[in-house]
Amino acid sequence: MKRYGGIEAGGTKFVCGIGDQEGRLLHRARFPTTTPGETIEQALEFFQKHDPVEAIGIASFGPIDLDTASPGYGRITSTPKPGWSRTDLVGQMSADLGVPVAFDTDVNGAALGEHRWGAARGLHTFVYLTIGTGIGGGGMVAGNLIHGALHPEMGHMRIPHDRSADPFEGICPFHGDCLEGLAAGPAIEARWGARGETLGEDHPAWNLEARYLGLALANLALTLSPQRIILGGGVMHVRGMFPMVRAELQATLNGYVQHAAFLDEIEKTVVPPALGDQAGVLGAIALALSG
Amino acid sequence: MKRYGGIEAGGTKFVCGIGDQEGRLLHRARFPTTTPGETIEQALEFFQKHDPVEAIGIASFGPIDLDTASPGYGRITSTPKPGWSRTDLVGQMSADLGVPVAFDTDVNGAALGEHRWGAARGLHTFVYLTIGTGIGGGGMVAGNLIHGALHPEMGHMRIPHDRSADPFEGICPFHGDCLEGLAAGPAIEARWGARGETLGEDHPAWNLEARYLGLALANLALTLSPQRIILGGGVMHVRGMFPMVRAELQATLNGYVQHAAFLDEIEKTVVPPALGDQAGVLGAIALALSG
Repeated sequence: MKRYGGIEAGGTKFVCGIGDQEGRLLHRARFPTTTPGETIEQALEFFQKHDPVEAIGIASFGPIDLDTASPGYGRITSTPKPGWSRTDLVGQMSADLGVPVAFDTDVNGAALGEHRWGAARGLHTFVYLTIGTGIGGGGMVAGNLIHGALHPEMGHMRIPHDRSADPFEGICPFHGDCLEGLAAGPAIEARWGARGETLGEDHPAWNLEARYLGLALANLALTLSPQRIILGGGVMHVRGMFPMVRAELQATLNGYVQHAAFLDEIEKTVVPPALGDQAGVLGAIALALSG
Repeated sequence: MKRYGGIEAGGTKFVCGIGDQEGRLLHRARFPTTTPGETIEQALEFFQKHDPVEAIGIASFGPIDLDTASPGYGRITSTPKPGWSRTDLVGQMSADLGVPVAFDTDVNGAALGEHRWGAARGLHTFVYLTIGTGIGGGGMVAGNLIHGALHPEMGHMRIPHDRSADPFEGICPFHGDCLEGLAAGPAIEARWGARGETLGEDHPAWNLEARYLGLALANLALTLSPQRIILGGGVMHVRGMFPMVRAELQATLNGYVQHAAFLDEIEKTVVPPALGDQAGVLGAIALALSG
Protein backbone atom coordinates (compact mmCIF):
# COMPACT_ATOMS: atom_id res chain seq x y z
CA MET A 1 0.00 0.00 0.00
CA LYS A 2 1.31 3.41 -0.97
CA ARG A 3 1.49 6.02 1.77
CA TYR A 4 1.39 9.78 1.44
CA GLY A 5 2.44 12.46 3.90
CA GLY A 6 0.68 15.69 4.73
CA ILE A 7 1.55 18.76 6.76
CA GLU A 8 -1.17 21.15 7.81
CA ALA A 9 1.06 24.15 8.47
CA GLY A 10 -1.00 26.55 10.54
CA GLY A 11 -0.05 29.75 12.27
CA THR A 12 -0.77 28.28 15.70
CA LYS A 13 -0.25 24.55 15.18
CA PHE A 14 1.29 22.08 12.74
CA VAL A 15 -0.44 18.76 12.11
CA CYS A 16 1.53 16.03 10.35
CA GLY A 17 -0.09 12.88 9.05
CA ILE A 18 0.45 9.83 6.90
CA GLY A 19 -2.46 8.39 4.97
CA ASP A 20 -3.43 6.16 2.09
CA GLN A 21 -5.21 6.80 -1.18
CA GLU A 22 -8.61 6.26 0.42
CA GLY A 23 -8.05 9.07 2.91
CA ARG A 24 -7.45 6.79 5.90
CA LEU A 25 -5.16 8.45 8.41
CA LEU A 26 -2.51 5.97 9.61
CA HIS A 27 -0.34 8.24 11.79
CA ARG A 28 -0.81 11.71 13.09
CA ALA A 29 1.09 14.21 15.26
CA ARG A 30 0.26 17.71 16.35
CA PHE A 31 2.54 20.37 17.84
CA PRO A 32 2.47 24.13 18.33
CA THR A 33 3.97 26.47 15.74
CA THR A 34 7.01 28.03 17.45
CA THR A 35 10.11 29.09 15.54
CA PRO A 36 10.53 27.91 11.94
CA GLY A 37 13.67 25.90 12.84
CA GLU A 38 12.12 24.06 15.76
CA THR A 39 8.76 23.46 14.06
CA ILE A 40 10.18 22.15 10.80
CA GLU A 41 12.56 19.91 12.77
CA GLN A 42 9.59 18.33 14.54
CA ALA A 43 7.87 17.70 11.20
CA LEU A 44 11.02 16.08 9.80
CA GLU A 45 11.31 13.83 12.86
CA PHE A 46 7.71 12.69 12.42
CA PHE A 47 8.30 11.56 8.83
CA GLN A 48 11.69 10.02 9.60
CA LYS A 49 10.15 7.97 12.42
CA HIS A 50 7.42 6.39 10.27
CA ASP A 51 7.37 4.36 7.08
CA PRO A 52 8.53 6.09 3.93
CA VAL A 53 5.99 8.06 1.90
CA GLU A 54 5.67 8.53 -1.86
CA ALA A 55 5.25 12.28 -1.59
CA ILE A 56 4.41 15.02 0.88
CA GLY A 57 1.82 17.75 0.64
CA ILE A 58 2.13 20.99 2.58
CA ALA A 59 -1.06 23.00 3.10
CA SER A 60 0.22 26.21 4.58
CA PHE A 61 -0.92 29.44 6.16
CA GLY A 62 0.04 32.35 3.97
CA PRO A 63 0.47 34.33 1.96
CA ILE A 64 2.76 31.88 0.15
CA ASP A 65 4.65 31.84 -3.14
CA LEU A 66 3.07 29.26 -5.46
CA ASP A 67 4.79 30.38 -8.66
CA THR A 68 7.05 27.49 -9.62
CA ALA A 69 9.02 29.87 -11.87
CA SER A 70 9.78 32.19 -8.94
CA PRO A 71 13.00 32.00 -6.87
CA GLY A 72 10.74 32.26 -3.83
CA TYR A 73 8.61 29.24 -4.73
CA GLY A 74 7.67 27.13 -1.73
CA ARG A 75 8.09 29.92 0.79
CA ILE A 76 5.80 31.79 3.11
CA THR A 77 5.99 35.43 1.98
CA SER A 78 4.85 38.46 3.96
CA THR A 79 3.31 36.98 7.10
CA PRO A 80 3.04 39.15 10.21
CA LYS A 81 3.97 36.02 12.22
CA PRO A 82 7.42 36.75 13.76
CA GLY A 83 10.30 34.84 12.20
CA TRP A 84 8.26 33.12 9.50
CA SER A 85 8.59 35.58 6.60
CA ARG A 86 10.58 33.98 3.73
CA THR A 87 10.59 30.56 5.44
CA ASP A 88 11.37 27.92 2.79
CA LEU A 89 8.99 25.09 3.65
CA VAL A 90 9.22 23.13 0.41
CA GLY A 91 13.00 23.34 0.02
CA GLN A 92 13.74 22.09 3.53
CA MET A 93 11.28 19.22 3.43
CA SER A 94 12.26 17.96 -0.02
CA ALA A 95 16.00 18.24 0.69
CA ASP A 96 15.80 16.28 3.94
CA LEU A 97 13.21 13.67 2.96
CA GLY A 98 14.07 13.15 -0.71
CA VAL A 99 10.48 12.91 -1.94
CA PRO A 100 8.35 15.21 -4.11
CA VAL A 101 6.67 17.98 -2.14
CA ALA A 102 3.37 19.56 -3.25
CA PHE A 103 2.50 22.98 -1.87
CA ASP A 104 -0.65 25.06 -1.61
CA THR A 105 -2.64 27.19 0.79
CA ASP A 106 -4.27 25.56 3.80
CA VAL A 107 -7.71 26.33 2.38
CA ASN A 108 -6.97 25.04 -1.11
CA GLY A 109 -5.64 21.89 0.56
CA ALA A 110 -8.82 21.52 2.58
CA ALA A 111 -10.86 22.12 -0.57
CA LEU A 112 -8.94 19.38 -2.37
CA GLY A 113 -9.47 16.97 0.53
CA GLU A 114 -13.20 17.69 0.60
CA HIS A 115 -13.29 17.15 -3.17
CA ARG A 116 -11.55 13.79 -2.95
CA TRP A 117 -13.18 12.36 0.14
CA GLY A 118 -15.71 14.80 1.60
CA ALA A 119 -18.50 17.29 0.98
CA ALA A 120 -17.41 18.28 -2.53
CA ARG A 121 -17.13 14.79 -4.02
CA GLY A 122 -18.31 14.76 -7.64
CA LEU A 123 -18.57 18.54 -7.89
CA HIS A 124 -16.55 20.66 -10.31
CA THR A 125 -17.07 24.18 -8.96
CA PHE A 126 -17.24 24.96 -5.25
CA VAL A 127 -15.86 27.16 -2.48
CA TYR A 128 -14.29 26.23 0.86
CA LEU A 129 -14.31 29.04 3.41
CA THR A 130 -13.01 28.81 6.95
CA ILE A 131 -13.99 31.28 9.67
CA GLY A 132 -11.75 31.08 12.73
CA THR A 133 -8.79 33.13 13.93
CA GLY A 134 -8.70 34.35 10.34
CA ILE A 135 -10.95 33.93 7.34
CA GLY A 136 -9.57 32.09 4.34
CA GLY A 137 -11.06 30.70 1.18
CA GLY A 138 -10.15 28.32 -1.58
CA GLY A 139 -11.99 26.20 -4.06
CA MET A 140 -12.26 24.77 -7.53
CA VAL A 141 -13.59 25.88 -10.89
CA ALA A 142 -14.21 23.13 -13.44
CA GLY A 143 -12.20 20.71 -11.31
CA ASN A 144 -9.12 22.92 -10.91
CA LEU A 145 -8.01 24.63 -7.70
CA ILE A 146 -8.19 28.41 -7.99
CA HIS A 147 -4.72 29.87 -8.64
CA GLY A 148 -3.85 32.80 -10.81
CA ALA A 149 -1.27 35.47 -10.28
CA LEU A 150 -1.14 34.23 -6.68
CA HIS A 151 -3.81 32.47 -4.64
CA PRO A 152 -7.20 33.60 -3.36
CA GLU A 153 -7.37 35.72 -0.21
CA MET A 154 -11.16 35.69 0.08
CA GLY A 155 -11.11 36.71 3.74
CA HIS A 156 -10.00 40.19 2.78
CA MET A 157 -12.92 41.02 0.50
CA ARG A 158 -14.80 44.22 1.26
CA ILE A 159 -18.47 44.05 2.18
CA PRO A 160 -21.03 46.67 3.21
CA HIS A 161 -20.43 47.80 6.80
CA ASP A 162 -23.24 49.85 8.30
CA ARG A 163 -21.48 51.89 10.97
CA SER A 164 -24.75 53.09 12.45
CA ALA A 165 -25.65 49.48 13.28
CA ASP A 166 -22.09 48.33 14.00
CA PRO A 167 -19.71 51.17 14.88
CA PHE A 168 -16.84 48.70 15.39
CA GLU A 169 -13.96 49.81 13.14
CA GLY A 170 -12.64 46.36 12.25
CA ILE A 171 -9.19 45.02 13.11
CA CYS A 172 -7.50 43.97 9.90
CA PRO A 173 -4.07 45.66 9.94
CA PHE A 174 -4.26 46.06 6.14
CA HIS A 175 -7.91 46.91 5.52
CA GLY A 176 -9.65 47.70 8.80
CA ASP A 177 -13.19 46.56 8.10
CA CYS A 178 -12.72 43.89 5.44
CA LEU A 179 -14.55 40.60 6.04
CA GLU A 180 -11.79 39.21 8.26
CA GLY A 181 -11.49 42.51 10.09
CA LEU A 182 -15.20 42.42 10.90
CA ALA A 183 -16.05 38.76 11.28
CA ALA A 184 -13.08 36.54 12.23
CA GLY A 185 -12.83 35.28 15.81
CA PRO A 186 -10.51 38.06 17.04
CA ALA A 187 -12.89 40.69 15.59
CA ILE A 188 -15.78 39.16 17.53
CA GLU A 189 -13.70 39.27 20.71
CA ALA A 190 -12.57 42.86 20.11
CA ARG A 191 -16.08 44.08 19.34
CA TRP A 192 -17.87 42.47 22.28
CA GLY A 193 -15.03 42.38 24.81
CA ALA A 194 -15.29 38.63 25.33
CA ARG A 195 -14.27 35.56 23.41
CA GLY A 196 -16.95 34.13 21.14
CA GLU A 197 -17.03 30.86 23.10
CA THR A 198 -18.24 32.76 26.17
CA LEU A 199 -21.12 34.55 24.41
CA GLY A 200 -24.52 32.89 24.69
CA GLU A 201 -26.31 31.47 21.68
CA ASP A 202 -28.77 34.35 21.76
CA HIS A 203 -26.13 37.06 21.91
CA PRO A 204 -26.57 39.71 19.17
CA ALA A 205 -23.01 38.91 18.06
CA TRP A 206 -24.30 35.96 16.06
CA ASN A 207 -26.95 37.80 14.08
CA LEU A 208 -24.35 40.34 13.04
CA GLU A 209 -21.85 37.58 12.24
CA ALA A 210 -24.39 35.76 10.07
CA ARG A 211 -25.18 39.02 8.28
CA TYR A 212 -21.53 39.59 7.33
CA LEU A 213 -21.03 35.98 6.29
CA GLY A 214 -24.23 36.09 4.23
CA LEU A 215 -22.96 39.15 2.37
CA ALA A 216 -19.60 37.47 1.73
CA LEU A 217 -21.23 34.25 0.52
CA ALA A 218 -23.45 36.25 -1.82
CA ASN A 219 -20.35 37.82 -3.37
CA LEU A 220 -18.73 34.41 -3.74
CA ALA A 221 -21.91 32.98 -5.25
CA LEU A 222 -22.19 35.85 -7.74
CA THR A 223 -18.52 35.64 -8.72
CA LEU A 224 -18.00 31.86 -8.95
CA SER A 225 -21.52 30.42 -9.17
CA PRO A 226 -20.41 27.51 -6.98
CA GLN A 227 -22.38 24.29 -6.76
CA ARG A 228 -21.64 24.17 -3.03
CA ILE A 229 -20.11 26.40 -0.32
CA ILE A 230 -18.37 24.52 2.49
CA LEU A 231 -17.96 26.52 5.70
CA GLY A 232 -15.38 25.39 8.26
CA GLY A 233 -13.67 26.91 11.27
CA GLY A 234 -14.57 27.48 14.89
CA VAL A 235 -17.17 30.19 14.36
CA MET A 236 -19.36 27.78 12.38
CA HIS A 237 -19.62 25.53 15.43
CA VAL A 238 -21.88 28.07 17.12
CA ARG A 239 -25.30 26.50 17.33
CA GLY A 240 -27.68 27.87 14.72
CA MET A 241 -25.04 29.56 12.59
CA PHE A 242 -25.67 27.49 9.47
CA PRO A 243 -29.41 28.27 9.22
CA MET A 244 -28.74 31.94 10.00
CA VAL A 245 -26.00 32.24 7.36
CA ARG A 246 -28.16 30.48 4.76
CA ALA A 247 -31.03 32.87 5.50
CA GLU A 248 -28.77 35.92 5.23
CA LEU A 249 -27.32 34.65 1.95
CA GLN A 250 -30.79 34.24 0.52
CA ALA A 251 -31.88 37.65 1.84
CA THR A 252 -28.88 39.26 0.15
CA LEU A 253 -29.41 37.51 -3.19
CA ASN A 254 -33.14 38.31 -2.97
CA GLY A 255 -34.15 35.67 -5.47
CA TYR A 256 -31.85 36.94 -8.21
CA VAL A 257 -29.96 33.68 -8.73
CA GLN A 258 -32.72 31.49 -10.14
CA HIS A 259 -31.28 28.10 -9.34
CA ALA A 260 -32.46 25.50 -6.86
CA ALA A 261 -29.02 25.52 -5.22
CA PHE A 262 -29.73 29.02 -3.93
CA LEU A 263 -33.48 28.62 -3.48
CA ASP A 264 -35.19 25.43 -2.24
CA GLU A 265 -31.98 23.45 -1.88
CA ILE A 266 -29.94 25.97 0.08
CA GLU A 267 -29.46 23.46 2.92
CA LYS A 268 -27.56 21.18 0.55
CA THR A 269 -25.52 24.09 -0.81
CA VAL A 270 -24.15 25.74 2.34
CA VAL A 271 -22.71 22.89 4.41
CA PRO A 272 -20.01 21.99 6.94
CA PRO A 273 -16.87 20.08 5.88
CA ALA A 274 -17.44 16.31 5.85
CA LEU A 275 -13.88 15.63 7.03
CA GLY A 276 -14.37 17.59 10.25
CA ASP A 277 -11.27 18.06 12.38
CA GLN A 278 -9.17 16.02 9.96
CA ALA A 279 -9.93 18.26 6.98
CA GLY A 280 -6.64 20.13 7.25
CA VAL A 281 -4.22 17.22 7.41
CA LEU A 282 -6.24 15.11 4.95
CA GLY A 283 -6.20 18.09 2.60
CA ALA A 284 -2.42 18.15 2.82
CA ILE A 285 -2.33 14.42 2.05
CA ALA A 286 -4.67 15.04 -0.91
CA LEU A 287 -2.15 17.59 -2.19
CA ALA A 288 0.59 14.93 -2.01
CA LEU A 289 -1.63 12.54 -3.96
CA SER A 290 -2.39 15.01 -6.74
CA GLY A 291 1.02 16.68 -6.88
CA MET B 1 -11.68 27.62 -45.09
CA LYS B 2 -14.06 26.75 -42.30
CA ARG B 3 -16.47 29.47 -41.20
CA TYR B 4 -18.15 29.91 -37.84
CA GLY B 5 -21.17 31.97 -36.89
CA GLY B 6 -21.66 34.13 -33.82
CA ILE B 7 -24.60 35.98 -32.32
CA GLU B 8 -24.01 38.65 -29.71
CA ALA B 9 -27.48 38.64 -28.22
CA GLY B 10 -27.78 41.85 -26.25
CA GLY B 11 -30.72 43.46 -24.54
CA THR B 12 -30.64 46.47 -26.88
CA LYS B 13 -29.02 45.06 -30.03
CA PHE B 14 -28.17 41.79 -31.74
CA VAL B 15 -24.93 41.51 -33.69
CA CYS B 16 -24.52 38.53 -36.03
CA GLY B 17 -21.21 37.66 -37.61
CA ILE B 18 -19.37 35.01 -39.59
CA GLY B 19 -15.66 34.56 -39.01
CA ASP B 20 -12.77 32.21 -39.48
CA GLN B 21 -10.50 30.42 -37.03
CA GLU B 22 -8.11 33.36 -36.90
CA GLY B 23 -10.82 35.70 -35.67
CA ARG B 24 -11.24 37.53 -38.98
CA LEU B 25 -14.77 38.83 -39.36
CA LEU B 26 -16.09 38.08 -42.88
CA HIS B 27 -19.69 39.27 -42.56
CA ARG B 28 -21.51 41.23 -39.92
CA ALA B 29 -25.01 42.59 -39.32
CA ARG B 30 -26.48 44.57 -36.48
CA PHE B 31 -30.12 45.19 -35.60
CA PRO B 32 -32.11 46.32 -32.57
CA THR B 33 -33.52 43.80 -30.11
CA THR B 34 -37.30 44.03 -30.53
CA THR B 35 -39.63 41.06 -29.98
CA PRO B 36 -38.10 37.58 -29.74
CA GLY B 37 -39.90 36.43 -32.90
CA GLU B 38 -38.81 39.35 -35.06
CA THR B 39 -35.24 39.46 -33.72
CA ILE B 40 -34.56 35.74 -34.08
CA GLU B 41 -36.04 35.83 -37.58
CA GLN B 42 -33.53 38.53 -38.55
CA ALA B 43 -30.68 36.43 -37.19
CA LEU B 44 -31.87 33.38 -39.14
CA GLU B 45 -32.08 35.43 -42.35
CA PHE B 46 -28.50 36.63 -41.86
CA PHE B 47 -27.13 33.10 -41.64
CA GLN B 48 -29.33 31.80 -44.47
CA LYS B 49 -28.11 34.58 -46.76
CA HIS B 50 -24.41 33.82 -46.28
CA ASP B 51 -22.21 30.77 -46.77
CA PRO B 52 -22.86 27.81 -44.49
CA VAL B 53 -21.09 27.72 -41.11
CA GLU B 54 -19.73 24.78 -39.14
CA ALA B 55 -21.36 25.88 -35.92
CA ILE B 56 -22.92 28.90 -34.24
CA GLY B 57 -22.12 30.45 -30.88
CA ILE B 58 -24.67 32.54 -29.01
CA ALA B 59 -23.33 34.92 -26.37
CA SER B 60 -26.45 36.13 -24.66
CA PHE B 61 -27.69 38.62 -22.14
CA GLY B 62 -29.11 36.81 -19.15
CA PRO B 63 -29.71 35.24 -16.83
CA ILE B 64 -29.67 32.15 -19.03
CA ASP B 65 -29.99 28.41 -18.46
CA LEU B 66 -26.63 26.75 -19.18
CA ASP B 67 -27.38 23.39 -17.59
CA THR B 68 -27.41 20.91 -20.46
CA ALA B 69 -29.34 18.47 -18.27
CA SER B 70 -32.14 20.99 -17.71
CA PRO B 71 -35.33 21.11 -19.81
CA GLY B 72 -34.77 24.87 -19.97
CA TYR B 73 -31.26 24.61 -21.45
CA GLY B 74 -30.55 27.24 -24.05
CA ARG B 75 -33.15 29.68 -22.82
CA ILE B 76 -33.09 33.13 -21.32
CA THR B 77 -34.64 32.73 -17.87
CA SER B 78 -35.94 35.54 -15.65
CA THR B 79 -35.10 38.70 -17.58
CA PRO B 80 -37.07 41.87 -16.86
CA LYS B 81 -36.98 42.55 -20.63
CA PRO B 82 -40.62 42.28 -21.81
CA GLY B 83 -41.42 39.18 -23.84
CA TRP B 84 -37.98 37.58 -23.55
CA SER B 85 -38.43 35.39 -20.44
CA ARG B 86 -38.18 31.71 -21.39
CA THR B 87 -37.11 32.51 -24.97
CA ASP B 88 -35.49 29.40 -26.47
CA LEU B 89 -32.51 30.80 -28.37
CA VAL B 90 -30.58 27.57 -28.85
CA GLY B 91 -33.53 25.40 -29.87
CA GLN B 92 -34.76 27.77 -32.55
CA MET B 93 -31.36 28.41 -34.10
CA SER B 94 -30.27 24.77 -34.17
CA ALA B 95 -33.62 23.57 -35.55
CA ASP B 96 -33.67 26.07 -38.40
CA LEU B 97 -29.97 26.06 -39.33
CA GLY B 98 -29.09 22.41 -38.65
CA VAL B 99 -25.68 23.11 -37.11
CA PRO B 100 -24.36 22.71 -33.54
CA VAL B 101 -25.09 25.73 -31.34
CA ALA B 102 -22.86 26.71 -28.39
CA PHE B 103 -24.35 28.94 -25.72
CA ASP B 104 -22.98 31.09 -22.93
CA THR B 105 -23.31 34.51 -21.34
CA ASP B 106 -22.28 37.58 -23.33
CA VAL B 107 -19.42 38.22 -20.90
CA ASN B 108 -18.12 34.64 -20.90
CA GLY B 109 -18.23 34.84 -24.70
CA ALA B 110 -16.25 38.06 -24.69
CA ALA B 111 -13.80 36.50 -22.22
CA LEU B 112 -13.33 33.53 -24.55
CA GLY B 113 -12.76 35.81 -27.54
CA GLU B 114 -10.17 37.84 -25.61
CA HIS B 115 -8.51 34.58 -24.59
CA ARG B 116 -8.30 33.30 -28.15
CA TRP B 117 -7.39 36.49 -30.00
CA GLY B 118 -7.12 39.40 -27.57
CA ALA B 119 -5.92 40.72 -24.23
CA ALA B 120 -6.01 37.37 -22.41
CA ARG B 121 -3.99 35.32 -24.91
CA GLY B 122 -1.76 32.82 -23.12
CA LEU B 123 -3.32 33.42 -19.70
CA HIS B 124 -5.11 30.77 -17.67
CA THR B 125 -6.92 32.79 -15.01
CA PHE B 126 -8.48 36.17 -15.72
CA VAL B 127 -11.64 38.24 -15.42
CA TYR B 128 -13.61 40.15 -18.06
CA LEU B 129 -15.90 42.83 -16.63
CA THR B 130 -18.07 45.17 -18.67
CA ILE B 131 -19.48 48.39 -17.27
CA GLY B 132 -22.23 49.86 -19.43
CA THR B 133 -26.02 49.80 -19.21
CA GLY B 134 -25.43 46.91 -16.79
CA ILE B 135 -22.37 45.40 -15.19
CA GLY B 136 -21.49 41.82 -16.10
CA GLY B 137 -18.49 39.64 -15.53
CA GLY B 138 -17.06 36.40 -16.81
CA GLY B 139 -13.67 34.82 -17.00
CA MET B 140 -11.52 31.75 -16.77
CA VAL B 141 -9.82 29.74 -14.06
CA ALA B 142 -7.08 27.37 -15.20
CA GLY B 143 -8.23 27.76 -18.78
CA ASN B 144 -11.90 26.97 -18.15
CA LEU B 145 -14.77 29.46 -18.34
CA ILE B 146 -16.40 30.01 -14.96
CA HIS B 147 -19.63 28.01 -14.68
CA GLY B 148 -21.00 26.26 -11.67
CA ALA B 149 -24.55 25.92 -10.51
CA LEU B 150 -25.33 28.69 -12.98
CA HIS B 151 -23.05 31.43 -14.35
CA PRO B 152 -21.38 34.39 -12.68
CA GLU B 153 -23.39 37.53 -12.04
CA MET B 154 -20.50 39.64 -10.82
CA GLY B 155 -22.33 42.92 -11.39
CA HIS B 156 -24.59 42.18 -8.46
CA MET B 157 -21.87 41.84 -5.81
CA ARG B 158 -22.22 43.99 -2.75
CA ILE B 159 -19.54 46.56 -1.94
CA PRO B 160 -19.18 49.18 0.82
CA HIS B 161 -21.49 52.15 0.18
CA ASP B 162 -20.80 55.16 2.35
CA ARG B 163 -24.15 56.94 2.42
CA SER B 164 -22.67 60.04 4.05
CA ALA B 165 -20.46 60.51 0.97
CA ASP B 166 -22.99 59.17 -1.55
CA PRO B 167 -26.59 59.26 -0.33
CA PHE B 168 -27.84 57.83 -3.66
CA GLU B 169 -29.85 54.70 -2.87
CA GLY B 170 -28.90 52.64 -5.91
CA ILE B 171 -31.28 51.47 -8.63
CA CYS B 172 -30.96 47.71 -8.87
CA PRO B 173 -34.53 46.34 -8.66
CA PHE B 174 -33.22 43.28 -6.80
CA HIS B 175 -30.52 44.70 -4.54
CA GLY B 176 -30.70 48.49 -4.52
CA ASP B 177 -27.08 49.43 -3.95
CA CYS B 178 -25.19 46.46 -5.36
CA LEU B 179 -22.32 47.29 -7.74
CA GLU B 180 -24.63 47.56 -10.77
CA GLY B 181 -27.14 49.55 -8.77
CA LEU B 182 -24.45 52.07 -7.84
CA ALA B 183 -22.09 52.14 -10.80
CA ALA B 184 -23.70 51.09 -14.11
CA GLY B 185 -24.54 53.79 -16.66
CA PRO B 186 -28.20 54.18 -15.60
CA ALA B 187 -27.09 54.61 -11.95
CA ILE B 188 -24.72 57.41 -12.98
CA GLU B 189 -27.55 59.10 -14.85
CA ALA B 190 -30.01 58.70 -11.97
CA ARG B 191 -27.54 60.00 -9.38
CA TRP B 192 -26.38 63.10 -11.25
CA GLY B 193 -29.50 63.81 -13.30
CA ALA B 194 -27.63 63.68 -16.59
CA ARG B 195 -26.25 60.99 -18.85
CA GLY B 196 -22.60 60.13 -18.24
CA GLU B 197 -21.62 61.25 -21.75
CA THR B 198 -22.69 64.81 -20.89
CA LEU B 199 -20.66 65.05 -17.66
CA GLY B 200 -17.25 66.68 -17.98
CA GLU B 201 -14.04 64.74 -17.39
CA ASP B 202 -13.54 66.55 -14.08
CA HIS B 203 -17.03 65.83 -12.77
CA PRO B 204 -17.01 64.20 -9.30
CA ALA B 205 -19.04 61.36 -10.81
CA TRP B 206 -15.86 59.76 -12.10
CA ASN B 207 -13.95 59.73 -8.83
CA LEU B 208 -16.89 58.01 -7.20
CA GLU B 209 -17.24 55.61 -10.12
CA ALA B 210 -13.55 54.68 -9.92
CA ARG B 211 -13.91 54.15 -6.18
CA TYR B 212 -16.74 51.63 -6.62
CA LEU B 213 -15.00 49.85 -9.47
CA GLY B 214 -11.77 49.69 -7.44
CA LEU B 215 -13.65 48.04 -4.57
CA ALA B 216 -15.25 45.54 -6.94
CA LEU B 217 -11.93 44.74 -8.64
CA ALA B 218 -10.32 44.19 -5.25
CA ASN B 219 -13.01 41.62 -4.41
CA LEU B 220 -12.49 39.89 -7.74
CA ALA B 221 -8.71 39.91 -7.25
CA LEU B 222 -9.03 38.46 -3.74
CA THR B 223 -11.49 35.78 -4.85
CA LEU B 224 -9.96 34.64 -8.16
CA SER B 225 -6.38 35.93 -8.04
CA PRO B 226 -6.59 36.72 -11.76
CA GLN B 227 -3.52 37.31 -13.89
CA ARG B 228 -5.38 40.09 -15.69
CA ILE B 229 -8.64 42.04 -15.39
CA ILE B 230 -10.10 43.24 -18.69
CA LEU B 231 -12.56 46.12 -18.38
CA GLY B 232 -14.96 46.83 -21.25
CA GLY B 233 -18.15 48.83 -21.72
CA GLY B 234 -18.98 52.44 -22.33
CA VAL B 235 -18.07 53.76 -18.88
CA MET B 236 -14.44 52.71 -19.38
CA HIS B 237 -14.21 55.04 -22.41
CA VAL B 238 -14.27 58.06 -20.08
CA ARG B 239 -10.84 59.64 -20.28
CA GLY B 240 -8.72 58.84 -17.27
CA MET B 241 -10.88 56.01 -15.94
CA PHE B 242 -8.26 53.29 -16.28
CA PRO B 243 -5.59 55.08 -14.20
CA MET B 244 -8.20 56.07 -11.60
CA VAL B 245 -9.58 52.53 -11.30
CA ARG B 246 -6.08 51.06 -11.02
CA ALA B 247 -5.23 53.54 -8.26
CA GLU B 248 -8.45 52.74 -6.36
CA LEU B 249 -7.81 49.01 -6.69
CA GLN B 250 -4.33 49.44 -5.24
CA ALA B 251 -5.61 51.72 -2.47
CA THR B 252 -8.20 49.09 -1.53
CA LEU B 253 -5.72 46.19 -1.53
CA ASN B 254 -3.23 48.36 0.40
CA GLY B 255 -0.25 46.23 -0.53
CA TYR B 256 -1.73 43.02 0.81
CA VAL B 257 -1.45 41.05 -2.44
CA GLN B 258 2.33 40.80 -2.78
CA HIS B 259 2.58 40.17 -6.48
CA ALA B 260 3.92 42.39 -9.25
CA ALA B 261 0.61 42.10 -11.09
CA PHE B 262 -1.02 44.18 -8.35
CA LEU B 263 2.00 46.34 -7.51
CA ASP B 264 4.48 47.66 -10.12
CA GLU B 265 2.78 46.02 -13.08
CA ILE B 266 -0.78 47.14 -12.41
CA GLU B 267 -0.93 48.87 -15.82
CA LYS B 268 -0.50 45.51 -17.52
CA THR B 269 -3.05 43.88 -15.24
CA VAL B 270 -6.07 46.17 -15.55
CA VAL B 271 -6.52 46.72 -19.28
CA PRO B 272 -9.14 47.37 -21.99
CA PRO B 273 -10.30 44.59 -24.32
CA ALA B 274 -8.01 44.14 -27.32
CA LEU B 275 -10.91 43.28 -29.62
CA GLY B 276 -12.63 46.62 -29.04
CA ASP B 277 -16.08 46.99 -30.57
CA GLN B 278 -15.89 43.50 -32.09
CA ALA B 279 -15.33 41.75 -28.74
CA GLY B 280 -18.97 40.69 -28.43
CA VAL B 281 -19.48 39.10 -31.82
CA LEU B 282 -15.97 37.63 -31.96
CA GLY B 283 -16.63 36.15 -28.53
CA ALA B 284 -19.74 34.47 -29.90
CA ILE B 285 -17.70 33.10 -32.81
CA ALA B 286 -15.10 31.87 -30.30
CA LEU B 287 -17.90 29.99 -28.53
CA ALA B 288 -18.81 28.31 -31.84
CA LEU B 289 -15.17 27.32 -32.33
CA SER B 290 -14.82 25.76 -28.89
CA GLY B 291 -18.32 24.27 -28.67
